[in-house]
Parts: sequence; C-alpha cells; structure tokens
Amino acid sequence: MANFDGPGFSMVDESWIQTKAIDIEPSTDFSPYLSRILEDCVWNGNRAIVFDVYWDVESVNTKSERRLSSVKLSTKNLCLFLRLPNQFSDNLKDLYRFFASKFVTFVGVQIEEDLVLLKENHGIVIRSYLEIGKLAAVARGTPIVEFLGARELAHKILSCDTSRLDSIQSKWDEAGGDDRLEAAAIEGWLIYNVYDQLQQ
Amino acid sequence: MANFDGPGFSMVDESWIQTKAIDIEPSTDFSPYLSRILEDCVWNGNRAIVFDVYWDVESVNTKSERRLSSVKLSTKNLCLFLRLPNQFSDNLKDLYRFFASKFVTFVGVQIEEDLVLLKENHGIVIRSYLEIGKLAAVARGTPIVEFLGARELAHKILSCDTSRLDSIQSKWDEAGGDDRLEAAAIEGWLIYNVYDQLQQ
Amino acid sequence: MANFDGPGFSMVDESWIQTKAIDIEPSTDFSPYLSRILEDCVWNGNRAIVFDVYWDVESVNTKSERRLSSVKLSTKNLCLFLRLPNQFSDNLKDLYRFFASKFVTFVGVQIEEDLVLLKENHGIVIRSYLEIGKLAAVARGTPIVEFLGARELAHKILSCDTSRLDSIQSKWDEAGGDDRLEAAAIEGWLIYNVYDQLQQ
Amino acid sequence: MANFDGPGFSMVDESWIQTKAIDIEPSTDFSPYLSRILEDCVWNGNRAIVFDVYWDVESVNTKSERRLSSVKLSTKNLCLFLRLPNQFSDNLKDLYRFFASKFVTFVGVQIEEDLVLLKENHGIVIRSYLEIGKLAAVARGTPIVEFLGARELAHKILSCDTSRLDSIQSKWDEAGGDDRLEAAAIEGWLIYNVYDQLQQ
Amino acid sequence: MANFDGPGFSMVDESWIQTKAIDIEPSTDFSPYLSRILEDCVWNGNRAIVFDVYWDVESVNTKSERRLSSVKLSTKNLCLFLRLPNQFSDNLKDLYRFFASKFVTFVGVQIEEDLVLLKENHGIVIRSYLEIGKLAAVARGTPIVEFLGARELAHKILSCDTSRLDSIQSKWDEAGGDDRLEAAAIEGWLIYNVYDQLQQ
Amino acid sequence: MANFDGPGFSMVDESWIQTKAIDIEPSTDFSPYLSRILEDCVWNGNRAIVFDVYWDVESVNTKSERRLSSVKLSTKNLCLFLRLPNQFSDNLKDLYRFFASKFVTFVGVQIEEDLVLLKENHGIVIRSYLEIGKLAAVARGTPIVEFLGARELAHKILSCDTSRLDSIQSKWDEAGGDDRLEAAAIEGWLIYNVYDQLQQ
Repeated sequence: MANFDGPGFSMVDESWIQTKAIDIEPSTDFSPYLSRILEDCVWNGNRAIVFDVYWDVESVNTKSERRLSSVKLSTKNLCLFLRLPNQFSDNLKDLYRFFASKFVTFVGVQIEEDLVLLKENHGIVIRSYLEIGKLAAVARGTPIVEFLGARELAHKILSCDTSRLDSIQSKWDEAGGDDRLEAAAIEGWLIYNVYDQLQQ
Repeated sequence: MANFDGPGFSMVDESWIQTKAIDIEPSTDFSPYLSRILEDCVWNGNRAIVFDVYWDVESVNTKSERRLSSVKLSTKNLCLFLRLPNQFSDNLKDLYRFFASKFVTFVGVQIEEDLVLLKENHGIVIRSYLEIGKLAAVARGTPIVEFLGARELAHKILSCDTSRLDSIQSKWDEAGGDDRLEAAAIEGWLIYNVYDQLQQ
Repeated sequence: MANFDGPGFSMVDESWIQTKAIDIEPSTDFSPYLSRILEDCVWNGNRAIVFDVYWDVESVNTKSERRLSSVKLSTKNLCLFLRLPNQFSDNLKDLYRFFASKFVTFVGVQIEEDLVLLKENHGIVIRSYLEIGKLAAVARGTPIVEFLGARELAHKILSCDTSRLDSIQSKWDEAGGDDRLEAAAIEGWLIYNVYDQLQQ
Repeated sequence: MANFDGPGFSMVDESWIQTKAIDIEPSTDFSPYLSRILEDCVWNGNRAIVFDVYWDVESVNTKSERRLSSVKLSTKNLCLFLRLPNQFSDNLKDLYRFFASKFVTFVGVQIEEDLVLLKENHGIVIRSYLEIGKLAAVARGTPIVEFLGARELAHKILSCDTSRLDSIQSKWDEAGGDDRLEAAAIEGWLIYNVYDQLQQ
Repeated sequence: MANFDGPGFSMVDESWIQTKAIDIEPSTDFSPYLSRILEDCVWNGNRAIVFDVYWDVESVNTKSERRLSSVKLSTKNLCLFLRLPNQFSDNLKDLYRFFASKFVTFVGVQIEEDLVLLKENHGIVIRSYLEIGKLAAVARGTPIVEFLGARELAHKILSCDTSRLDSIQSKWDEAGGDDRLEAAAIEGWLIYNVYDQLQQ
Repeated sequence: MANFDGPGFSMVDESWIQTKAIDIEPSTDFSPYLSRILEDCVWNGNRAIVFDVYWDVESVNTKSERRLSSVKLSTKNLCLFLRLPNQFSDNLKDLYRFFASKFVTFVGVQIEEDLVLLKENHGIVIRSYLEIGKLAAVARGTPIVEFLGARELAHKILSCDTSRLDSIQSKWDEAGGDDRLEAAAIEGWLIYNVYDQLQQ
C-alpha cells in the first residue's frame, strides 16, 4: 500500500495533511501513490484533486522554453509532490493517464497558461479541470478574485489565517525543503477548502 | 439480430442495463450493435446517445500522443463498449459514420478536449453533440456543474445513490473487467438520466 | 421545365412534398432543378431553403477524411436529393454557385462542422445561412434546443406527430431507397415549418 | 463628369435610381464614377454606400476557388455595377483604395464570408463596414433578422412591396441584363432605406 | 523648438488648429514634432492623441498589398501629418517608438483592420489604443455608432456643423493640398472632442 | 541583503518609494533584488507586484521587431528598474522564473500586447497577471477606464495630484535619468494604489 511517509503538517483548523515527495527516476513506480490520491478523493465527497505544476526555464538564444519540472496533487488529507526527470521515461505515462481521468475534477489556480504549455510542450491533456478563480468570481460576483493567486483567493473566500504560508513564502529563497513542502501542502489545502466552500 | 449478451446490471431505480463489450478486429462486424443502439435510442423518446471515449498514451521523446483506444455508447437500456485495435481497419468506418449521424444527439461530459483530439488525431467528426455540463449550468443557473465529472454532475442533478460507482472507482486499479463494465454502465445511465431530466 | 417526377409524400398536415433524386454524372444538367427550387422558395414567402449534406468517410492510415457525397435541398413543396460523383466534374459549379446565392437563406440543423468541412475540403462557401437550433434556443429561451437534431427540434417547436420518421430511422440499415427519400422529405419539411414558425 | 447613363428605375416610393454598368478593361477609367458615388453619398446625409460582391467559381481538382467577378455600389440615387476582368489590371487599385475609404460606411448583408474572401483571395480590406443584419437584430431585438437576405431583411424592417424583385429573382436564369440590373438597383435601394431607418 | 508652421484652421467653435505636414526622408528629424505633440497632449488634460493611418495599394498578380503611406496625429491644438517614404529608413523608428508610448491613449475610428495591418506588414504595435466607436456605442447605448466613420460619429455625439468637411470630402479628387490638410485637421478635432465628451 | 540604494522619492501622500536601477550584465546577480521585491509584496497585504515592460525597436527591411529592453517592478515601498542586455545571458532566467511565480499577482496597464510579445519573442510567460484597466472598468461600471494609460486610470480612480508626473512626461526627451526613475516610481505607486483601492 502506498505510504505517505513524508512529514505531516497541521493546518489552522487542526486538520492534518500527510505528504509524500518523490524524485521520479525511470525505475520509480509512483502509480500506487496516484491510486491512493484517487481513492482519497473519491471517498472525500467532492471528487476534487487540487493540482499545481512547476516549470524549468531552458534557453535557446533570446528565447526561453519551459519544461515541466514538478507536479503537486492535493486532496483533503494528502499532498503528493512529484519531481520529474529531465528525460521522458516510460513511467511518466502513468501521470499523463492520471491527468486524463474523468472520475475527478482537477482544480487549479491561474492554470490557463499551464494547460496550454502542458499540451504544446508535452502533449498532456487534463480532461476535466476547473480554473477555480473564474468560478469564484462568477459564484461570488466579485470579478477581482479571478486574478488572485492561491493564498489571496483563499484569503477572500475563507478568511482564514495564512501567516505560516506568508512567513515561508516571504523568505522563499532561504526556505528549506520541508518548509517548501509545508507551503505546498498549505496552498493545496486552502484551494481544496475554497472548492469545497463554493460547492455548498 | 445484435445480441447484447454481456452481463446485465441493475441500477438504483431497478432499471436494467444490458451490456456488450467487443474487441474490434479487422474482421469484426460490429455494425449490427450500432444499429441496435440507434434503434433503442430512436424509440426511447429523446434520441440521446451518451458516449465517452478513452485514449492511450504514446510517447515520442518529451511529448506524448493520444490514440483512441475505446468508445462507450449508452442508451436507456443498453451499453456498448468497443475496444479499438492499434491499427486502422476498414470496419472502423462504421463507427466514424455512426458518429456523423444527425438522427441523434451525442451527449457527453467534459468532451471539449475529446472532440478536438478526435478530429486532429483521427479525422472523426461528431456532428450533433452536447456537452451536458455546460447545458446543466445554464439550465440550472449553477455555474459549477459545468466543471464536474459524470458522477458529480449526476449527483447534483439527480441526487441519487452512487455508492456502487464510488466503490468501484475508488479501487479502480484492482477492479476486474466486469466491475469496470458495470461502472461504465452506471456512468452512462446516470448521464442519460441527467439529460432526460434537463429535457423536461 | 424541371420535373420533380420522383415519389410524392403526404405530410401529417396533409401537405404534399414532391421529390427528385439525381445521381450526378459529368453530363448531368441539374441546374433546372436548382432553378425550380429557387423559384419555389422565392414565391413561398420566407425565402428559406432547408439543406443537409452527407459525407463519405475515406481513410488514410489512422486518419479519416470526408468527401461530400450528397446534398438535400428542401422548400415548402419540393425536396431535391443530389448524389455527387467521386470526382469533381464541371457541372458541380452550378451547385457551388447556388450555395453562394444571397437571394435566400440556407437553413440547417447542426451545420457548424459541415460549413467548416465544406470550405476546407471543397472550397464551398454558403454565404447566407442559418443554424436554426441556435436561433430557436434564443427565440424560445430554451438553451437545450440548440443541441437537438432535426426531428427532436421539430418535436419541441411544432409538437407534431413524427412516428413515420421514427419508424424509418429506427430501422435505417434495412430501409429501402424510397423510405430513405421519404425520411429526407419529412426532415426537410419539419425544419421548413420550424423556420416558418420562428419567423412569426 | 461621370454620367450614369444606364437605365433608370422607379422604386415603389416613386424615387428614381439611375444606374451604370461597366465592364472594366485595363484601359477603363472608372474612377470618376466612384467619385460621383462618393459625392452623392456625402451629400445624402448618412454617408452610407451599400455594396455587394459577386464571385466566380474556379475549380482545382475536388476544390473550388473564388474570384471576385463583380461589385455593386449603391447610394440613395445611384447604382454602379462593375464587372471585373479575369486578370488584375492596374486600374483596379482605384477600387481597392475606394473600399479603404473612411469617409463613408460600407453597408452590406451577410458579408462576413465576403470580407474574409476579399482579404484572403485579393488582399482587399474594407476599412469601415457594417453588417446590417447584425445591427438590425440588436436594434430591433429580433435575432432572426441577422440571418436574412437583403429582400427579407428589408421586408421585415420596411414592410414595403417587393413583388417586382420577387418576380425577377424567381426567374433569375431567364432574366435579361436590364432586369438583373433593376434587381440590383432595388436590392441596393432596399438596404439603403433599412440603414436609413435604423439610424433614426 | 518644433514649429507647427503649416496653415492654421479655425474650427466651428472658434478654436484654432495649427498644422504641420512633413515629407519624411532618410535625413528628416521629425522627432521634435512628436515631442511637441506629446507635450501638448499631456498638458491638455485627457492625454489623448487622435490618429489615423493611410495605406498605399501595391499589387502582386491578383492580390494587393498595403504599405503604410501616411500618419495623422491630432491633439487639442495641433495636427501633424507625416508622409512616409517607400523604403524603411532609420528615423522611422522614432514613429514606431512613439506609437508604443503608454503615457497616452491613441484614439482612432474604425482602426481594427489598421492595427492588424500595422503589426502584420510593419511590425508596429500601438500599445495603448481606443476604438472610439465601440466605446461610444457602449457609453451611449446606441449600437450603430460603433460602425460610423469619423464625421458621422462626431455628428451623432456632438451635433455640430460639419458642412466645411462635407464640402471638401464630396469633391475629394479635386481638393487641393491645403483643403485636404484642413479636412484632416477637422476630422482630428472632431474625434478629439468626441473623446473629451465621452470622458465627462 | 539587497540594498535599494538608488534615489528615494516622496509621493503625494508622504509615502516614500525607494528605487534601484540595475544594468544587467552576464555577471550581474540581481536575484536578491527580486527576493526583496517578493518579500515586500508578501508582507504588504495584497501580494501585488506592479510591472511594466519596455521594448527596443529593431528593423528588418520594412518590418520592425521588438526586443525587451527594460522591466519595471513596483511594490508598496520599492521600485526596481532592470535594463536588459542585448544578448540573452544565463542570469536572465532568474527574471523569467520570477514572472512565473504564482505567489503574487502581476498587475499592469494595457499589457495585452506586451504579454503576447513576451511569449512570442522571448518565451516569457507571466502566469498570474491582471490587466487592471479591464478590472476597474467592470468594478466601477465605467467602460472608458479600460482604455486609459497608468496616469489617467489613477486619476479617475484615486483623484490625486499628478502634476509632478505630468511635468516630467511632458518634457520626456529632455528629462534626466533621475527624473525618469521618479516618473517610473510614481506610475508604479499610482497603479499599486489603484489595485489596493479596487480590492476594498
């Protein structure tokens, strides 16, 4: 059984997020972790998986190109952080197939450009996705929330304390690996709760 | 006469879905099954065929490509599951022509990307289709339903028990062939009923 | 004078549709039939010609391509069914020019993809056209009718008996040439009356 | 001074349209006629020039192409009909420049496809144009008028007698040159008056 | 100091427009005139520069191409008319950079096609622009004004006397250089005042 | 610690903006300044970074091309002005990555064309951005503010005194480096406050 044996973090409402960070190599079988994420998401009611993607900048003359470097997947209780290799390896297909699932809705913040880049640069298609800022803007009648980042969006919708996240992000370059993982978990958890709130 | 001699499943409202799964080979004549689906759909009042398509991921360097691997077609009483071969064979034209029918409306969930890929990768054009989530969002005035998957959309519109589906999908990797066929039948039936409901 | 000497069919309101089916060969002069259609349409008040196009599927490797195989043109009293040859022949220009007419409005159901294919694959441009489902959706304030096929759309707007059409279409593969022509005539007549109704 | 010495026609409100048809050859100087049209349009209050373009179909294999064959320009009192040569000749620049004028608004019916073809096939850009059907649909709150041809649009907005036009267009293939010129003049006059009406 | 030593014209409200027409040659330094325009625009409150561009038609076979031939820039008190050379010369960069300014809003009428051509044919990007017809249509709730030329738009919004402009434009081919410059100055002044009005 | 040791400027509300201008060379490490900007932005509540980009015009025949020449980044208290080298150097990746941050919202005026050029010409993607004019237009119900430059937009929303900015910009060509830096700081500060205001 896939074990989320990375550090666990307590959220401001006392809930607990268990994390797992994986450096994917050609021989890594990370599919059990995806199955566990799927299972958690199905049983937690709203079938939402919050995701975020990170890019590496590569340069060719005056132009830069982007390569998918990491992926974050969050459910109510879990946060999976996958660091991708430079070269395509066959096991990445598991991730590509996971994104194509229609069982669940992939929820993200400011993902429009990401979706274009995922398709153009890697042929990855997320089939069932939701740009949560746009939905929140319509649902709440406040146009500005469409343009906010994860923390500000959560701040507007949930009005909860985000000082721990602020503290890590304001000193991002000096933050250690666990701090960054905690920030990832907090952001995932914030968006999960925004989505949950909007569904009421 | 095309015989849906696969397993039958009972839905939560006691209705019965008869299924048929076919592995298409160059010599397979599956057109009688398409005719039977068409006939059932014409006589069942709303002329809707619920469909879903599944893709295989193939990779070329850092890019992935998608190839149509299976197609699901559902009416009120029937669910046909077609597994497609790797190579194009002449009998697939029957399926392509079926999709071009204007007798019926092909109903799907989150199909926008699918329609683009069908055209770009296989030249398949579904002529009369309906993205049911978008329609439900407009018809019910609840923007969020546009972004939901099949089960969540049905949940919102029909409020019916989906525990059997949840149970199969939460353990998808361990599910057997018949369980997966049952899940396909349930999802098809759910969407068929959502469409029926929205038509009232 | 162009003679619509194919079978005639009685509609449910006792009106009569005279048909003509033509297999176009390089030497066929079908332009008098187009003139007769035009004349009928001009004198029948609303200057609408209902059209539908049919495609043949051709395949190149895993991709399929579409070639225009037939065209149906309907007015209040006439239904012309043209089967096109595989090769372009010079007399087809008469049809291409006919579509470019601005005297009349060409009315169709679910024609968006057709219009794209007509232009991309054959360079045919219909200059004055109307996707009647979209108009009906706006005019009646019922979004779902935008996505319906001809029969369902007519059913919603006209509430007339379509059992004869249902009977033919449900057994399409076994239907004979005259039955199919009758179905074409009925569909054309249904849409003509929907358009007429919407104009009131 | 450019002399509109073609036939004159009386409209249903007793107004008079003076016409001129010109077959453009490389040595034809038609610019005085354009100047006269411009002058008439400036002094007649609303600075509208009604235009229509006609295409010839040329075929390459299964594809057809379109070549601009004629142009109609109408003002309150004048109707100029220009037949263009097969080959580009230098004097056509006068027409291209005329279309680029911003002094006036070029008014047309169902011109969307025309504008695309003019640019793609001939590099002609009409800078200040108005698709009058769209405007009428918004201004009158009747969506259907967006999709009507010139005669039907005028019929809806002006409710005037169009039996002369109907009579010519219903027998178009048998109509003589003067009849067709009269039909062109009537259509131009109808649209001019629709535009005038909408401006009130 | 850049001297607008061309003819001055009195507008219908007794205001005075000073003009300058420049034929740009490779050695012409027209940047002081742009600076003076900028300065006038900054101090006159609304930071608007009214512009218009003119194209030359060049032909290649049946296609025509457009080359930017002149540019008009108007502020409250000044009107600068630049005639561009056939060949690109280095001093044109001053104009290109001027258009990229974000200090001001460039205001034009029916400029959509112009902006496309400027970018496609010359790589010129106007960064801060306003299609004033569209704005007027929204601000006044009268859709038709979106499609009007400069004079008609001003007529609708300002209701001022434009007989001098009409007089010049109706005899455009016979108009002399100073008359045309006066027409340019009047049009610029009209649009400047429309913009000013809409800002209230 | 990154030291903003350029000139400081007092704003009209007595607040103080500390500036730093950097000419980036291949060996320049400007990332500490970006970190400081990020830190200031996180702690100042609304996580907004106001940005502006400047382009150099390069010409190839009759076409011009644009190359990113400078970038301005403003927070509540800081203004960073980066001048970029002609050649891509590896340290520019720090800037490209900074723009891809989702911690913050990048706020700009009239940035639509900039975003297109950044992607097309340099492959730079700003992931979380806000065109503030569009938002202000919606939030305030005044369409015209969508089309205004920074100063005019601020003028409409904040009604504060901008005479210092006007004074510098009206004599831009004669302005010295410090004056231009002050103008940059003022514009950044104005937009920051507009955004702050709109968030209330």
